[in-house]
Amino acid sequence: MTVLIVGSIALDSVKTPFGEVKGVLGGSATYSSIAASFFVPVRMVGIVGNDFPRRYVSLFKKRGIDIEGLQIVRNAKTFQWAGHYEYDMNQLHTLATCVNVFEHFRPTLPQHYRQTPLVFLANIDPELQLEVLDQVERPRLVLCDSMKFWIEGKRDALLEVLKRVDIVLLNDSEARQLCDTTNLQKAARMLLKMGPRRVVIKKGEHGCLMFGHDTFFAAPAFPLEHVKDPTGAGDTFAGGFIGWLARSQRPTEIRLRQAVIVGSTLASFTVEDFSVKKLVKLTPDVIQRRCEGLKTASHFRKICV
Amino acid sequence: MTVLIVGSIALDSVKTPFGEVKGVLGGSATYSSIAASFFVPVRMVGIVGNDFPRRYVSLFKKRGIDIEGLQIVRNAKTFQWAGHYEYDMNQLHTLATCVNVFEHFRPTLPQHYRQTPLVFLANIDPELQLEVLDQVERPRLVLCDSMKFWIEGKRDALLEVLKRVDIVLLNDSEARQLCDTTNLQKAARMLLKMGPRRVVIKKGEHGCLMFGHDTFFAAPAFPLEHVKDPTGAGDTFAGGFIGWLARSQRPTEIRLRQAVIVGSTLASFTVEDFSVKKLVKLTPDVIQRRCEGLKTASHFRKICV
Repeated sequence: MTVLIVGSIALDSVKTPFGEVKGVLGGSATYSSIAASFFVPVRMVGIVGNDFPRRYVSLFKKRGIDIEGLQIVRNAKTFQWAGHYEYDMNQLHTLATCVNVFEHFRPTLPQHYRQTPLVFLANIDPELQLEVLDQVERPRLVLCDSMKFWIEGKRDALLEVLKRVDIVLLNDSEARQLCDTTNLQKAARMLLKMGPRRVVIKKGEHGCLMFGHDTFFAAPAFPLEHVKDPTGAGDTFAGGFIGWLARSQRPTEIRLRQAVIVGSTLASFTVEDFSVKKLVKLTPDVIQRRCEGLKTASHFRKICV
Repeated sequence: MTVLIVGSIALDSVKTPFGEVKGVLGGSATYSSIAASFFVPVRMVGIVGNDFPRRYVSLFKKRGIDIEGLQIVRNAKTFQWAGHYEYDMNQLHTLATCVNVFEHFRPTLPQHYRQTPLVFLANIDPELQLEVLDQVERPRLVLCDSMKFWIEGKRDALLEVLKRVDIVLLNDSEARQLCDTTNLQKAARMLLKMGPRRVVIKKGEHGCLMFGHDTFFAAPAFPLEHVKDPTGAGDTFAGGFIGWLARSQRPTEIRLRQAVIVGSTLASFTVEDFSVKKLVKLTPDVIQRRCEGLKTASHFRKICV
């Protein structure tokens, strides 16, 4: 099945203790579309300025990503983000956010996008997420992500989004903040009451938790010795997650758990280099091996006390 | 097989957002001995003053813990510790530490202790850990734990301990500090070079990692909505871990992984109430059910990309 993804497409400038890049390809829709494109056809919705390098457009096309929904605005600049990570990679300092073209963005879906069965509302203004969702006819499965900025600034719109999605993905600090509790189990239970059938909480190096009304899955993160740049890990996770789901007819618990592992695996590659450098080079058997590594790493034999 | 445990026996005063207790049973040897006693006979080495309540001595005896190695010193006070946890339970403030009887403690093992096959050197001055180890004749398996205080204050003695143990248990911040790296994989690899065959890194709510020279196991934590007091979680983990190992002849990777799960499970009960209140009430089938819960929570089906 095909996946529709709306989110940001950005030119990122990132500094970490292991290097620095300027004006490279980034954004939530970018990472998640590329990740999903390993498994299924992707339709992208977004906006860039005419400063957006052609080679990045080609990159999307080469991966079979449908960019008819990508607006390229003349005489305008692409969304820009600059951040700096400390030696402890959990410490991110956002240095600059220039929304540019996003300021007046009104997503309009091309006709053939409107019946896409799976929708991922990647991190973007929740009002835009709703606008996109309104244009899709009876999607089978809707996923959303968000961030601190919207939790604080557009809480009501975000809650409206949550009512209309099947699965919400958040990282642990976002879940704690949105639900005003330090306990992730409590946060998950509250989120389940807001609408979604599954709550996926990403914890970076500590793996990922997936909660349903009566299901619970804890996935480890792939152990990495060299993390160069955490940017895009969550978006890559989401893209791998929905991409994997889109390869089967029904999102059963079995399939959802595999999707968490596939998402984690793809994210583990993203953080090993800047931008999408490592991600775009992946092959199915490289992905396969890390998935198997996670299987081996989490297996233990039944215990009889 | 029998387990010998040396560590602290304390009277703890703890305040958390969910309550407060004063002068209750605590200490690394206490939690770990009780946890191990669910599986095998335990021999305890430690010291208390004559203020140590008799009911606590009875509690040890009732659990079949051999306390011939427990020195009770006249006219002296038991080790006391006072701490305060914030709403985010990862924030601990130590309010007071009165070593009291520990100041002049010289452990002397009773004759029948000297051939105990499994030894757990619980958190205590590493010089005392070495003194105890010197008195045990060719133990089959030696485990140790430590803490920030010794990493900073008695690093050389601690490194000497590490040379002589089979397995080291540390929490994540201790491992990062001892190895001067934020990356746990790097820390584990460095620790493996210091002597132990396995490195177990406890991450509280994020579960636990076990590293060998060519093995890696990631275990989830049991999901808890109500954590009352995290004190003793790590010590309980260690006791359950070595207790489970002591029930079989050889510490194979299969057995070691189960031991991690058993340790995590017991620790999940400890934090649900103050002191050893919940721990001492456990029964095998209550423990069994949580072990099964962790099995279900971490299972996923093989992925074919």
